[in-house]
Amino acid sequence: ELGVCYYPEQWPREKWEDDARRMVELGLAWVRIGEFAWAKIEPRPGEFHWEWLDDAIDVLGSAGLKLILGTPTAAPPKWLIDRHPDILPVDVNGVVRKFGARRHYCFSSRVYRVEAARITDAMAERYGRHAFVHAWQTDNEYGDHDTIYSYSSEAERAFRLWLAERYGTTEELNRAWGTAFWAMNYNSFDEIELPNNLVEEPSPTHIVDFIRFSSDQVKSFNKAQVDIIRGHAPGRPVTHNFMSHNTDFDHYKVGEDIDIASWDVYPMGGLLNGRLSREDKGRYLRVGDPDQPAFNHDLYRTVGRGRVWVMEQQPGPVNWAAHNQSPADGMVRLWTWLAYAHGVDMVSYFRWRQVPFAQEQFHAGLLLPNSEPDQGYLEVAQVVEEMKRLPKGEARGKAKVAILLDYNSRWATRALPQGRTYSAAASALDWYSTVSRLGVDVDFIGQHSDLDGYQLVLAPDLVIANQAFVEKLAKSEAKVLFGPRSGSKTEDMHIPEGLPPGPLAALIDISVARVESLPEFHGETVLYGNETYPSGIWRETVRTSETVLATFEGEYRNGAPALVGNDKARYMAAAAQGDLLKKVINDALGWASVEALADLGDLRITRRGKLNFAFNYGKEAADVPAGTGATFHVGGRKLAPVDVAIWTE
Amino acid sequence: ELGVCYYPEQWPREKWEDDARRMVELGLAWVRIGEFAWAKIEPRPGEFHWEWLDDAIDVLGSAGLKLILGTPTAAPPKWLIDRHPDILPVDVNGVVRKFGARRHYCFSSRVYRVEAARITDAMAERYGRHAFVHAWQTDNEYGDHDTIYSYSSEAERAFRLWLAERYGTTEELNRAWGTAFWAMNYNSFDEIELPNNLVEEPSPTHIVDFIRFSSDQVKSFNKAQVDIIRGHAPGRPVTHNFMSHNTDFDHYKVGEDIDIASWDVYPMGGLLNGRLSREDKGRYLRVGDPDQPAFNHDLYRTVGRGRVWVMEQQPGPVNWAAHNQSPADGMVRLWTWLAYAHGVDMVSYFRWRQVPFAQEQFHAGLLLPNSEPDQGYLEVAQVVEEMKRLPKGEARGKAKVAILLDYNSRWATRALPQGRTYSAAASALDWYSTVSRLGVDVDFIGQHSDLDGYQLVLAPDLVIANQAFVEKLAKSEAKVLFGPRSGSKTEDMHIPEGLPPGPLAALIDISVARVESLPEFHGETVLYGNETYPSGIWRETVRTSETVLATFEGEYRNGAPALVGNDKARYMAAAAQGDLLKKVINDALGWASVEALADLGDLRITRRGKLNFAFNYGKEAADVPAGTGATFHVGGRKLAPVDVAIWTE
Amino acid sequence: ELGVCYYPEQWPREKWEDDARRMVELGLAWVRIGEFAWAKIEPRPGEFHWEWLDDAIDVLGSAGLKLILGTPTAAPPKWLIDRHPDILPVDVNGVVRKFGARRHYCFSSRVYRVEAARITDAMAERYGRHAFVHAWQTDNEYGDHDTIYSYSSEAERAFRLWLAERYGTTEELNRAWGTAFWAMNYNSFDEIELPNNLVEEPSPTHIVDFIRFSSDQVKSFNKAQVDIIRGHAPGRPVTHNFMSHNTDFDHYKVGEDIDIASWDVYPMGGLLNGRLSREDKGRYLRVGDPDQPAFNHDLYRTVGRGRVWVMEQQPGPVNWAAHNQSPADGMVRLWTWLAYAHGVDMVSYFRWRQVPFAQEQFHAGLLLPNSEPDQGYLEVAQVVEEMKRLPKGEARGKAKVAILLDYNSRWATRALPQGRTYSAAASALDWYSTVSRLGVDVDFIGQHSDLDGYQLVLAPDLVIANQAFVEKLAKSEAKVLFGPRSGSKTEDMHIPEGLPPGPLAALIDISVARVESLPEFHGETVLYGNETYPSGIWRETVRTSETVLATFEGEYRNGAPALVGNDKARYMAAAAQGDLLKKVINDALGWASVEALADLGDLRITRRGKLNFAFNYGKEAADVPAGTGATFHVGGRKLAPVDVAIWTE
Ligand SMILES: [Zn+2]
Ligand SMILES: [Zn+2]
Ligand SMILES: [Zn+2]
Repeated sequence: ELGVCYYPEQWPREKWEDDARRMVELGLAWVRIGEFAWAKIEPRPGEFHWEWLDDAIDVLGSAGLKLILGTPTAAPPKWLIDRHPDILPVDVNGVVRKFGARRHYCFSSRVYRVEAARITDAMAERYGRHAFVHAWQTDNEYGDHDTIYSYSSEAERAFRLWLAERYGTTEELNRAWGTAFWAMNYNSFDEIELPNNLVEEPSPTHIVDFIRFSSDQVKSFNKAQVDIIRGHAPGRPVTHNFMSHNTDFDHYKVGEDIDIASWDVYPMGGLLNGRLSREDKGRYLRVGDPDQPAFNHDLYRTVGRGRVWVMEQQPGPVNWAAHNQSPADGMVRLWTWLAYAHGVDMVSYFRWRQVPFAQEQFHAGLLLPNSEPDQGYLEVAQVVEEMKRLPKGEARGKAKVAILLDYNSRWATRALPQGRTYSAAASALDWYSTVSRLGVDVDFIGQHSDLDGYQLVLAPDLVIANQAFVEKLAKSEAKVLFGPRSGSKTEDMHIPEGLPPGPLAALIDISVARVESLPEFHGETVLYGNETYPSGIWRETVRTSETVLATFEGEYRNGAPALVGNDKARYMAAAAQGDLLKKVINDALGWASVEALADLGDLRITRRGKLNFAFNYGKEAADVPAGTGATFHVGGRKLAPVDVAIWTE
Repeated sequence: ELGVCYYPEQWPREKWEDDARRMVELGLAWVRIGEFAWAKIEPRPGEFHWEWLDDAIDVLGSAGLKLILGTPTAAPPKWLIDRHPDILPVDVNGVVRKFGARRHYCFSSRVYRVEAARITDAMAERYGRHAFVHAWQTDNEYGDHDTIYSYSSEAERAFRLWLAERYGTTEELNRAWGTAFWAMNYNSFDEIELPNNLVEEPSPTHIVDFIRFSSDQVKSFNKAQVDIIRGHAPGRPVTHNFMSHNTDFDHYKVGEDIDIASWDVYPMGGLLNGRLSREDKGRYLRVGDPDQPAFNHDLYRTVGRGRVWVMEQQPGPVNWAAHNQSPADGMVRLWTWLAYAHGVDMVSYFRWRQVPFAQEQFHAGLLLPNSEPDQGYLEVAQVVEEMKRLPKGEARGKAKVAILLDYNSRWATRALPQGRTYSAAASALDWYSTVSRLGVDVDFIGQHSDLDGYQLVLAPDLVIANQAFVEKLAKSEAKVLFGPRSGSKTEDMHIPEGLPPGPLAALIDISVARVESLPEFHGETVLYGNETYPSGIWRETVRTSETVLATFEGEYRNGAPALVGNDKARYMAAAAQGDLLKKVINDALGWASVEALADLGDLRITRRGKLNFAFNYGKEAADVPAGTGATFHVGGRKLAPVDVAIWTE
Repeated sequence: ELGVCYYPEQWPREKWEDDARRMVELGLAWVRIGEFAWAKIEPRPGEFHWEWLDDAIDVLGSAGLKLILGTPTAAPPKWLIDRHPDILPVDVNGVVRKFGARRHYCFSSRVYRVEAARITDAMAERYGRHAFVHAWQTDNEYGDHDTIYSYSSEAERAFRLWLAERYGTTEELNRAWGTAFWAMNYNSFDEIELPNNLVEEPSPTHIVDFIRFSSDQVKSFNKAQVDIIRGHAPGRPVTHNFMSHNTDFDHYKVGEDIDIASWDVYPMGGLLNGRLSREDKGRYLRVGDPDQPAFNHDLYRTVGRGRVWVMEQQPGPVNWAAHNQSPADGMVRLWTWLAYAHGVDMVSYFRWRQVPFAQEQFHAGLLLPNSEPDQGYLEVAQVVEEMKRLPKGEARGKAKVAILLDYNSRWATRALPQGRTYSAAASALDWYSTVSRLGVDVDFIGQHSDLDGYQLVLAPDLVIANQAFVEKLAKSEAKVLFGPRSGSKTEDMHIPEGLPPGPLAALIDISVARVESLPEFHGETVLYGNETYPSGIWRETVRTSETVLATFEGEYRNGAPALVGNDKARYMAAAAQGDLLKKVINDALGWASVEALADLGDLRITRRGKLNFAFNYGKEAADVPAGTGATFHVGGRKLAPVDVAIWTE
């Protein structure tokens, strides 16, 4: 189903009916409202103005739309800030971040917790059982503009409590943080400060614990809203709209408390900051990184425990990136079908109409500011028509290959990167992309996930492996490929006793005796099979009794293992990219008996139930690898650039 | 006439007579003094020491020099700061900017307004009618080192008053700023803060209003001094020395209150930070961007409503740029003639003698620190001789082509750039340079300017067009060429109703349905005539009933209009540079019946009355395009590098 | 002799005996402990726990190791900071730098001076005469992480006192700082502030005086500890471990107060930030800049007035650089021999065992975290064996060539760089490298040094020359080669009367009339002999009656002198690098009758007494230039990459 984000408070009352009518006419089923409306609902303390919101819900709902109502806590009003300035977050330099945009609150502010509950309760009480309100969204984009980490005195106070609960005694904290190192010992939890503005780097455990604390603050802040909403709105699903591949907090943990994970899809901005070479950025300028949206659909499907929505879909150029190129004509349709193919059940476009004032006036909508249809509108209309031709009820099945994404491990790398250009995020997307180019579907898993049915687990950066996961993996049928740094830290952010990969040594007999990070202009070389490949910016010295599948060649420790393995597990001692990564993953697929296609280039293939999908991100027409008896519901065997084909075999 | 900047307070008394004598001997007529002398005049509160200044004025004046006296408000003394620390400005991060250099005051400090008036009044009272004091300068270089914008509590207080006056009610402010957007509504002007240290970007109207406010503060600060001076010094012109192409405040508005606009010419430092390619920076390393000084002469001629001086002319290497290369020998002479050619009536060199101490000791003077003549001195002597050969009384006439520079529009782009590498300043200079290379003289205009006599108006970046200007333009004889983004915002920083170009649609029937900014490594292509040209980092989708003169070619919206026009107006939908810009402007000149030359390359030609000037910025000798019967007053038909020719036909 | 850094407080008691035994077994003689142990010694105010340290000293000493005991003042405990928050340093932006790592103290904190003396006294009293404690180290790495300059109110207070003592009157300070320049006059020392957060740059004399003050604070802080230690530990040498080529304070002056200079050798991290081209960084990736360690051995030999130790020798990859590549296998041995060759009498490795927790867990040790030998351990064992083969008692003799390194001059360049890419440090290392590649040994000197026996003094950047040094030089036998900027400032940071090179004009008749800095992409050309060479980013216009040995060629002041000289002195007007510098220095060696070899490429040759050493930093085997009758103690005539040869002729 399709929907749209709408802000009645930003438009004259006389436009509402017409807007609602046109939404339905276009074929939209859902409309999200409310998430920035606090100051309109409660313009002065305790003075509630529900009438306009009652009216808006009535207009939209009466037109036939299902409403998703957002709690307005991402934007507390000025009068609230002026009464309680300690709501404001503090940045890493110690500067208070002021009112005037949004997300100007600290998750640890006690008064803001009370206020956020108050307004949530008021909204939920009023609309929880409203016939037109079918779903709820908590807040908006946790983490936008670096808002997870606040260095306020409220955060310091809460951090101390969190640490006291985690460690019990300062002795235990001193042990975990290794404060014996530079006489950093603490005698009391009240002595502990936040890890900013130090002379040198803090203890990595201090950093990671602050991240874990901050992540837990998001979870409890969100859960408080969910609990209130559920109390008043039984049976209505609650969601939150996450941001693509944000790892500032543990999305699995927040996902536990909601019914559906949704996320906001803006592929254009991510392209230019992303992992690709400058050449590829030019090539994909108006289609985006072909794997970034799919990666996140698959990730948030896991965060939502099977249920995933797109809450905001880019409908044209946006306003917030360094450069804001237009998507190619056809991309809004392509992204919509891509979402559907990856198991997304609702795609909501952001926004109905481009706003002619305030911060986002360069952000496109489905309509131009003067209410004419923009390009996105036309493409949505096309999707609506095409949807009618598809068989209903197909569900995204479980994949044979799982990629492990572990937030705790990401934080470990953030606290101790050891190489400035090492990016775990880029590496994970590279692995995903490599599998996708071979036409293989993927699920994301965490260490908590069920492994049944997977033939191959890819673990590009499982830095902190827990014992339970290792045992589950050992018992499962799955084979597993580990990237470098796997198992290199304990939960306390220590090197495991007996050297890395710590608990993973139960699966593969190796020990890592040395690691090094290399500048991007330097290349190592790996010999794998009969071919040599350039290798990347990370290299490990591995000792092993297992089979050596590939070796480093060159001046430094020539012949040292680069890839080792046994029947259950393989371990890469290099940060592989490009052709080396393709070779490693392709071989691993074969080893795990997962069927793959030849490299698809700019084409992508995926499946939802018995439906097959092809997407062409390239500049040339491509041949769709459909069987001879295939039935095409959308498109055909020859796929133009920026085009989509859907068929059943 | 020529002059020099001199600081008697920095030199032993015994040097003054000799310095004055040598200035006159060199042929100088003017000397500027006083603008950093506050602590010498009033070393302790209320304790005035005029005797040295009386003496200095007497020595210089008696030698035959006309004095320009500067008010010393750019450098309040330490005792004043210690008594009133709230004079100090606050930077964008909220950090107080300390005493120890200069410009350490906030334009909104109430106490500083009083103090600045007090010292100005004391000086003006003492020297206003002094026979030797022929002109006055207010303060020094408003805006140097980012000093227009102060984020102090004094500025906040004044900003609230300014907003209350502008908007009357918070309802009206809320409408203009679009605070409905993210619940940013204000209930009172006292709730409003300055637009720094926010979580995300402020409303663009919030930003632009803060710039407008800051600009108005400069105007009122300056006008207060002018009024005091005029009261005591009737008939003496008042000037201020502006900085090249600074757009932090509205120079036209400050220009309204003074008699002569002056500016400070330092072409070497600007080159390396400027618009040119690295290759061209190497080529012009010791001559500077050939169009940057001329651009500013023409601009400040308009700021000064016809009267323009150079208050500080670089005499050799300076100290403040990242690299401080020496000008080529001959450039001081060339720059002096260039100023004269562009209508400048007085060129004052900075400074008489290189100072062997303090911050600027690497800054050359006409004399070396040991009082020997430096290169600049010798070149000034040559100019003095050459000036004697010229016919007197020639005035710079009105040009046929006008370039529109609108400060308000620049602020609109600054508040909402939409593309990181988009530079309106570089674009305006590119347009100016393109016209100049075709040998055509140019005037600058604002929206307030009289359009009589112009055949062509070039408007590279008129983002906010006002209705009065559009009507004036419609009634005028002038044809007009608009760059992209023209008319794209209202005075409230909104997208115009009915889409851009808003009021400009009265001149040309287009509407802009989409804009995009592109990374610098990506190229679009424009087909114009039978040739294709690379195009730049900005592209618009234009709908029009007018003639399409050029189109975009390529993968995205192939064939879309890139240049459209009718008999009155043309509109460019691309950010043109290089050959495309040359083609567009050359065609526009022909369309407007303005005669042009072939591309002059490194030569520049301009006219003052019946005098023709040629300047050679290249590395090879060039032929001067003089008529066969031309009379050469300086130079001849063959022009060496770094040389000047002056002739009458 | 060899040693190691050990932290008993970081390891379980049960490991100590075994660790001590293995150290002795490996052949180590020294062990350094204690320098971060304050919180373990005094966990609560006044509550001392000596028992563990008594025990550790006993275990290590009984095993046969000599102890170096560090005062723990680099890491004051949290309880001390909480009681006296004004111990904390303040960064240049005015932000307090918090507890949580190390070096969190301001050298000007009065309370910290008292506390540092108290803990030093307590330790010295307890262990000063202990039989096992053979040497003392004060604090740890003064200057690490930019900790020399603190902008606290304590520093401001002390700076005012220091200025009052230096200048006596504000009149004299005003003269020296040139405050007449921008009305910056001070009426009282209490008006003076620290030179941060100004609107523009402070007076360069203000900056340099703040650096001199900060340097003096380090000296007095260090001397206070030395005096206490000497009182309790007569006859035991005191050292401090300096950081390579740090010029934040005057190392000669701190060196006056200690018995032995030691420094910390981490060549890998410096490579990537250093002077070399990207190509050379790739080539030397795992061996480091071949001249950087040798440069510092020679420098600290002078700082230690003949006695130099390596207190920390990198044993493998480290953790703190942007990229942390592994040294090539063999480099730990090579660096150890290099140190010995350059006169180092003790090399201590950092650290015994890699720590599995806290900030430095990616920093290698001689042992892996699980106590297995790492690569460094094996190489140390090899060195121990090789040392047995050498004749004993050879001392590093005095060289024929001296390089002048003057800290005061470096501060002058830092205060007024005039060109962003000009680096005096890189230039000095280039000069050193050029001499070294010609096989010539070098001593460093300061202006205070004895010049007897030197045939050639190289002065790459003697900006502030003092009269006494000039006279000493004039009387000596040495010839001298000056780099550009020599003699260009007085002690007051003024341009000398009569132009640069000020007092150096007594040695060579030149005056510098103009200087310019050039962007790195622009090249000047110098004609020297019959060849032309590219020249660098600095150029001076020199007037001279001396012989012109080389000239600038090109468009700007073609034929101007680039190198001039007489029989005593030569002066370079260009920032020479590469081949030009090689030519200039090679000729200067010949002129001074110093015998040199042909360019050694990646080989380095040096001598200690009658021992000759060769080191191969290249990727190919090299021929050692030993006489036909040479006796090889280590290695032979053919030297493999990363290998060492030692022979007597
Ligand atoms: Zn309730
Ligand atoms: Zn008056
Ligand atoms: Zn004592």
